[in-house]
Amino acid sequence: MTSWFANLSPLDHRYHASAPELWEELSGILSEEAYIRYQMQVEWALVEALERRGLCPKGSGDQVRAACERVSPEDVRREEARTRHNIRALVNCLQGEVGEKVRPFIHLTATSADVMDTARALQLRDVTNLSIVPRLKEFLTILITLAEKTANIPTVGRTHGQHGVPITFGFAIAEYISRLGSRLVAITNAKNNLRGKMAGAVGAYNASSLLCADPMEFEKEVLGLLGLTPGGHSTQIVEPEYTLDLGHTLVSTFGVLANFADDMRHLQRTEISEVGEAFAEGQVGSSTMPHKRNPWNFEHVKSLWKAFMPRMVTLYMDQISEHQRDLTNSASGRFVVEIATALAMALERLIKVTKKLSVDEGQMLANLKSRAHLIVAEPLYILLASYGHPDAHEAVRKLTLEAEKTGQSLADLAQASSELASYTERFTPEQRKVISDPLTYTGQAATKCVEICTIWSQKITQI
Amino acid sequence: MTSWFANLSPLDHRYHASAPELWEELSGILSEEAYIRYQMQVEWALVEALERRGLCPKGSGDQVRAACERVSPEDVRREEARTRHNIRALVNCLQGEVGEKVRPFIHLTATSADVMDTARALQLRDVTNLSIVPRLKEFLTILITLAEKTANIPTVGRTHGQHGVPITFGFAIAEYISRLGSRLVAITNAKNNLRGKMAGAVGAYNASSLLCADPMEFEKEVLGLLGLTPGGHSTQIVEPEYTLDLGHTLVSTFGVLANFADDMRHLQRTEISEVGEAFAEGQVGSSTMPHKRNPWNFEHVKSLWKAFMPRMVTLYMDQISEHQRDLTNSASGRFVVEIATALAMALERLIKVTKKLSVDEGQMLANLKSRAHLIVAEPLYILLASYGHPDAHEAVRKLTLEAEKTGQSLADLAQASSELASYTERFTPEQRKVISDPLTYTGQAATKCVEICTIWSQKITQI
Amino acid sequence: MTSWFANLSPLDHRYHASAPELWEELSGILSEEAYIRYQMQVEWALVEALERRGLCPKGSGDQVRAACERVSPEDVRREEARTRHNIRALVNCLQGEVGEKVRPFIHLTATSADVMDTARALQLRDVTNLSIVPRLKEFLTILITLAEKTANIPTVGRTHGQHGVPITFGFAIAEYISRLGSRLVAITNAKNNLRGKMAGAVGAYNASSLLCADPMEFEKEVLGLLGLTPGGHSTQIVEPEYTLDLGHTLVSTFGVLANFADDMRHLQRTEISEVGEAFAEGQVGSSTMPHKRNPWNFEHVKSLWKAFMPRMVTLYMDQISEHQRDLTNSASGRFVVEIATALAMALERLIKVTKKLSVDEGQMLANLKSRAHLIVAEPLYILLASYGHPDAHEAVRKLTLEAEKTGQSLADLAQASSELASYTERFTPEQRKVISDPLTYTGQAATKCVEICTIWSQKITQI
Amino acid sequence: MTSWFANLSPLDHRYHASAPELWEELSGILSEEAYIRYQMQVEWALVEALERRGLCPKGSGDQVRAACERVSPEDVRREEARTRHNIRALVNCLQGEVGEKVRPFIHLTATSADVMDTARALQLRDVTNLSIVPRLKEFLTILITLAEKTANIPTVGRTHGQHGVPITFGFAIAEYISRLGSRLVAITNAKNNLRGKMAGAVGAYNASSLLCADPMEFEKEVLGLLGLTPGGHSTQIVEPEYTLDLGHTLVSTFGVLANFADDMRHLQRTEISEVGEAFAEGQVGSSTMPHKRNPWNFEHVKSLWKAFMPRMVTLYMDQISEHQRDLTNSASGRFVVEIATALAMALERLIKVTKKLSVDEGQMLANLKSRAHLIVAEPLYILLASYGHPDAHEAVRKLTLEAEKTGQSLADLAQASSELASYTERFTPEQRKVISDPLTYTGQAATKCVEICTIWSQKITQI
Repeated sequence: MTSWFANLSPLDHRYHASAPELWEELSGILSEEAYIRYQMQVEWALVEALERRGLCPKGSGDQVRAACERVSPEDVRREEARTRHNIRALVNCLQGEVGEKVRPFIHLTATSADVMDTARALQLRDVTNLSIVPRLKEFLTILITLAEKTANIPTVGRTHGQHGVPITFGFAIAEYISRLGSRLVAITNAKNNLRGKMAGAVGAYNASSLLCADPMEFEKEVLGLLGLTPGGHSTQIVEPEYTLDLGHTLVSTFGVLANFADDMRHLQRTEISEVGEAFAEGQVGSSTMPHKRNPWNFEHVKSLWKAFMPRMVTLYMDQISEHQRDLTNSASGRFVVEIATALAMALERLIKVTKKLSVDEGQMLANLKSRAHLIVAEPLYILLASYGHPDAHEAVRKLTLEAEKTGQSLADLAQASSELASYTERFTPEQRKVISDPLTYTGQAATKCVEICTIWSQKITQI
Repeated sequence: MTSWFANLSPLDHRYHASAPELWEELSGILSEEAYIRYQMQVEWALVEALERRGLCPKGSGDQVRAACERVSPEDVRREEARTRHNIRALVNCLQGEVGEKVRPFIHLTATSADVMDTARALQLRDVTNLSIVPRLKEFLTILITLAEKTANIPTVGRTHGQHGVPITFGFAIAEYISRLGSRLVAITNAKNNLRGKMAGAVGAYNASSLLCADPMEFEKEVLGLLGLTPGGHSTQIVEPEYTLDLGHTLVSTFGVLANFADDMRHLQRTEISEVGEAFAEGQVGSSTMPHKRNPWNFEHVKSLWKAFMPRMVTLYMDQISEHQRDLTNSASGRFVVEIATALAMALERLIKVTKKLSVDEGQMLANLKSRAHLIVAEPLYILLASYGHPDAHEAVRKLTLEAEKTGQSLADLAQASSELASYTERFTPEQRKVISDPLTYTGQAATKCVEICTIWSQKITQI
Repeated sequence: MTSWFANLSPLDHRYHASAPELWEELSGILSEEAYIRYQMQVEWALVEALERRGLCPKGSGDQVRAACERVSPEDVRREEARTRHNIRALVNCLQGEVGEKVRPFIHLTATSADVMDTARALQLRDVTNLSIVPRLKEFLTILITLAEKTANIPTVGRTHGQHGVPITFGFAIAEYISRLGSRLVAITNAKNNLRGKMAGAVGAYNASSLLCADPMEFEKEVLGLLGLTPGGHSTQIVEPEYTLDLGHTLVSTFGVLANFADDMRHLQRTEISEVGEAFAEGQVGSSTMPHKRNPWNFEHVKSLWKAFMPRMVTLYMDQISEHQRDLTNSASGRFVVEIATALAMALERLIKVTKKLSVDEGQMLANLKSRAHLIVAEPLYILLASYGHPDAHEAVRKLTLEAEKTGQSLADLAQASSELASYTERFTPEQRKVISDPLTYTGQAATKCVEICTIWSQKITQI
Repeated sequence: MTSWFANLSPLDHRYHASAPELWEELSGILSEEAYIRYQMQVEWALVEALERRGLCPKGSGDQVRAACERVSPEDVRREEARTRHNIRALVNCLQGEVGEKVRPFIHLTATSADVMDTARALQLRDVTNLSIVPRLKEFLTILITLAEKTANIPTVGRTHGQHGVPITFGFAIAEYISRLGSRLVAITNAKNNLRGKMAGAVGAYNASSLLCADPMEFEKEVLGLLGLTPGGHSTQIVEPEYTLDLGHTLVSTFGVLANFADDMRHLQRTEISEVGEAFAEGQVGSSTMPHKRNPWNFEHVKSLWKAFMPRMVTLYMDQISEHQRDLTNSASGRFVVEIATALAMALERLIKVTKKLSVDEGQMLANLKSRAHLIVAEPLYILLASYGHPDAHEAVRKLTLEAEKTGQSLADLAQASSELASYTERFTPEQRKVISDPLTYTGQAATKCVEICTIWSQKITQI
């Protein structure tokens, strides 16, 4: 027993403290304790399948199930301290809790990796199902609500950090709905493609072939009891690409969150101030600058991404295992669960802060107006060209320089230009409106925003 | 004009020299020259779609297509030196080659990124279709032939670099058929999911909304002419995850190749000598040790993987682009094509060397036999347990230590053991055979090998 | 012969085009052609050292030197096409150009890696000396000039993207002088620690021990002719850490450049507009938004960093080479020169753009003033505390909320506060000045800026 | 309170269990609890320095020191739950334990990052001094002992996994002494270059300038009390390169350990069997293959390296912080301590296993002899060439092929060759000996080994 406070990993101390319920939830799936419980499930499934085939005494499966209840993960750790082999320890513990006739059938034909890899797949499936997917859906729902509410709020579109042409705030949020929506689909697909194995020490069913004529079928039966299927080919371990693909979907989801966080924190810059994190009563912004309102939750999510994204490199390195397996993916493979942990924590954080995000419509309009006279450059050029001006882009570029020099608006300069008159006089009233009121030049921003909200509101319910 | 020999990137000098035809092939798709040609295709599709809608003069599309033939990439580069803007240069060049009435419609409503991102998608689609997938299929076919031929050749299964229990060589090869087969499917799916855009400067169809009432439909028409569809939401750029997902499938395929290469080079170790790279007449193995036969092609593939795998980190970082886009993914995004290049080169190399791989059946048998007396430990333990021995693993472990001490075989010790007699006397003849001839203890290795070959022989033809 | 335009690597096409003189300079050091020239130097040094010891005919060294002039890298490549071994090809070519008596001594006792690793060290030394260090010094000099000129220009210090307390612009620039200065020292140290070898096939001087009694001394003589020393221990290759350490200094320098670029591009945001990239006459900012002035050079540098930083992972992986060497660091090791290439290109770009950076003093003041009334929070809290207020931070935090609510200035509220009177009345005139004119609250910004400029102006001249 | 067993990070569960004393040791330096203690030290140093300058009441420093004893990290966490600001919480707690007159001076002029960055530097310094360096020295001492003992044991030098020419086992070990020795020096230098700061919210000493005329001097006094010095320039944070450089030395040390581990596990391959991990009494090798003796400790170290090496990418990304600091390096920066943790764990593991490494001299000789007849190729070629044979390499290459075909030894074939007679008859007796007994062809392996042992035995004592 030690205090979580003495732990070494920030996941187990600082981020434990900042989200204790989530930590408990994840611990129930991803801790060593939980891992051992999953391993016991696998050992049960094996004996249960043996029994169903009549290869061991009736009631064996139930005996093992009961043993799994009685054996605590701590018992297993104590036994491991003696045997120095985790799965042998587990087997010893279970054997101690079943009748003598059942004992020999525990773990029979299995190799440690059959149990460990299958248990890992169960952990990753469950953390995805129980902790990641629900939070991702909740975050998507919050974004959809936000986008629907702000679908028509004009704001400036920014490229290179510069004012471009107008969009609506909802349209900017819809980007993240679309990207995260497609990540949700990707995560779900990868999670559904996790695999287990019960193919023995080198994957060739050597041991199980001694007991039955169709060991590949038998493997399906064992895994089927756990809701899994076997991989395409196993060595001592499951093909690494199933987990790798899941890792990719988790990390790439993290990347979208980091981009969202970056956008939000830049929109909170003092000079921009279009959105804001709500601050709790009594919360301190800075230990020395009491007036600060920092976007620290968004900064936190970006920072977590920096800590966890590079770990994909570990997963890519773990694709390599010599011959029928070397053990150099063992320690590294254990850290995979930390990626899921960090992603769940990032989602949790974003859900809380985005739910209360304050959107300053007035400031958006003010910012947009500050350069609105220049925004007109693009529609002017498009319209001139569409009416046949042979070099509209260059014509507008020069007009822009003149506008900057004289302080006149582009619209006025265009109107006054005799060179352009043959084109501008053919503009329709709607077209004139865009030129004179460039804030209406938002294209399909609102429409597209609503379309994306509709699509994903529906799709979420189907996943 | 410079000699390729003066180039800076090893891809353009050393690996140009080692596979000149492949280099030419890839250059035709991935070079700057080729990129400009793809960009011209996009500019053509835009005008063609405008024409089909009656938004520009009849024959405009054909004029642009003809202009694309006349304008050389070199022309564009020269113009870019003047304008310092690559797409403006391209547009200028095309405009110079069409009639005055068509001129204004070139690039109309498009932003540079519409053209560049769509052209990049075309490049990545084509290099996948033309250079990666065919080579991956060819390599798979070679592996299938090899596996079928060696499906029944016994060899030792190795875990931790230690002899485990027997498999067949074909079964070891089947691992790579299964893993690469599933990568082939993944590559194909990701490639088919590449997207383009024609949504303007901030993705909201601001410009195209000036010309038509259904700009999202219009975007589909433009991209449809190129065999593409739009992404779920665009800012100035296409959502990065489409390319990222393709990158993941390419890099994870590379990882499987690296694993295969590692296995083959270890099997070539002097002490193991189970396979060999064929050497060309007159080829020098070492500048100072003339007797060396180095697995240098396999080493090369592993090494290329080390050079290119970490670049996934760049793709993950490129998920982040501020607001409606900053340009910090521009230079980095250009290097994506190098991943495809390297993967094609690695496949080319593996095809050549694996086709001529020499498999030393005799040496496999010799290695297997050298510890065959110990291999029997596993089946012995399984059989004892299946006949109800309450602690078979421990019993066999002790017997193993005795075997090591006395030099006697495990089989003989087991046979002689009075403690074990009540179990061993119940062994069936087949079971006795495995114990006395552990080389037959290959489980389903041959069966599984053939099954995998059958599955993938067929699937390949459907992709 | 192919056009550079058909090349595969962006380094050899796009970035070739954008900086052709730099490309030529780097090609002269880092291309395959240049590599072969460096290898010839090593072969010469070996024969020269043999001659100086009387181990081969007089004049041998000069003959080899002359041969190195006559043999072209192209000759070597042609020979390699035949022998399929690059160093054997080189040796054959040189042997063909010397007298029969000298011939056997070319490459004698050397292994290929002796020549290749030593030549690589020469390349890396030279590119550092000739292309990186001078550019880094030039960039530092530009920054020093800029910092000295702006040492007293007040600007707001930003943390979390929020206005904090004032600094001067020169102080912000001084950050980069200090960080890049220390990187310059680090690069120089790592470069001076590059090593060569002439220790034979497995590093144990097996071959050279046949010819002389002190082969370790002989190795020093050979390398001394090239300005290098041997590593602490060699296998077939030089210990990888010498190159790795250089790689770290180059990549970490790149990181500082990326940070600088990020700062500059954010200061160019429309809403901030404190600095600007000068635009060339006729340059196009956006193909569709003619009014845009994008920070594209700074974006480019950040983007290059994203492309090259992850390659450190390759260098770390290349620390592992089995036993006395496997070849899996060969291809990957060739790409190391691309890191130096990209860094030189980034420096070149920053030199050009920073030289002409426009600094908008007025806008800095305007931004600073917009929240100046809040800035006063920090000095107020410090002064209250220093005069003994028991809870100054909390007192000021509450005052801040009041200021936000009422629109009054913090200074006025503090002045008016009877609670605080016992402290505020003891403020010195200077202290009152800071509270009433928070723009003067720049601490040691100017002093520190000048100090850093002085230190590094001097240190640069000593490196 | 939770059981370590429920923790999320493998560092805090599995690797806690496998090395509990080490875990306790590291927890005392690197946990959140320990971090808070270090932060309190910094707060003390600040007040102590204020007192020494007469800026606060006499005895303030001692009062704060006493408060640091009384305040527990748990108190701070409880307070943080209220304030949601870790350093404000710390300050509140300390203030509660000192007299009213001292209270205002706690944290005065400091910003949170002054305390946190300085405390982090102290943590990293201490973990290096107390946990890394002593273990690295111990491991070096073990390697030196091993190398000295085996300096003369002949073994085959392997390149490309192929037998090359002979070395001695001690020479192979000396590689790691040299590489790790130079890493020890690098770690020490980087550790000695860690820096702190006391420069306020944006690094310009704004606050401290209100209290004294030489705040840069004052900063040195504060840090001097902690054994640190300030960085070259600070923003809100210390320049990231000091920690980054330390990270590089730690990770590159890890790389050398991984290489050593790889070598050892390959030498344990069944077919090679030259070294072995000692197994504990009762330890289980495989749950299903009782005869296995797996190199699992070496595999573990390699695997840990895969998990932690990629984290350098995080450190490189953390070089970028916008303007005077954004917070996106905060969470990520916390994980830096995990790199030190993992390295200490890897060293601990290697110390234990290498101490008991069994070296099978007989097997080394047997392996060496198995191809000894081919090894003679290199010395034969060198000698022929040194006596003037114009194409010795080719001559020996052909002889090698003949040897392979006929089964005769190279030595015999050379002896019998009339073509070569004019050279071979001039061989000295020593030279003939090498040809006839290639096992003596170990060059300077033993000498170099002893030299390296001598150098590092001495240097270790000086660090």
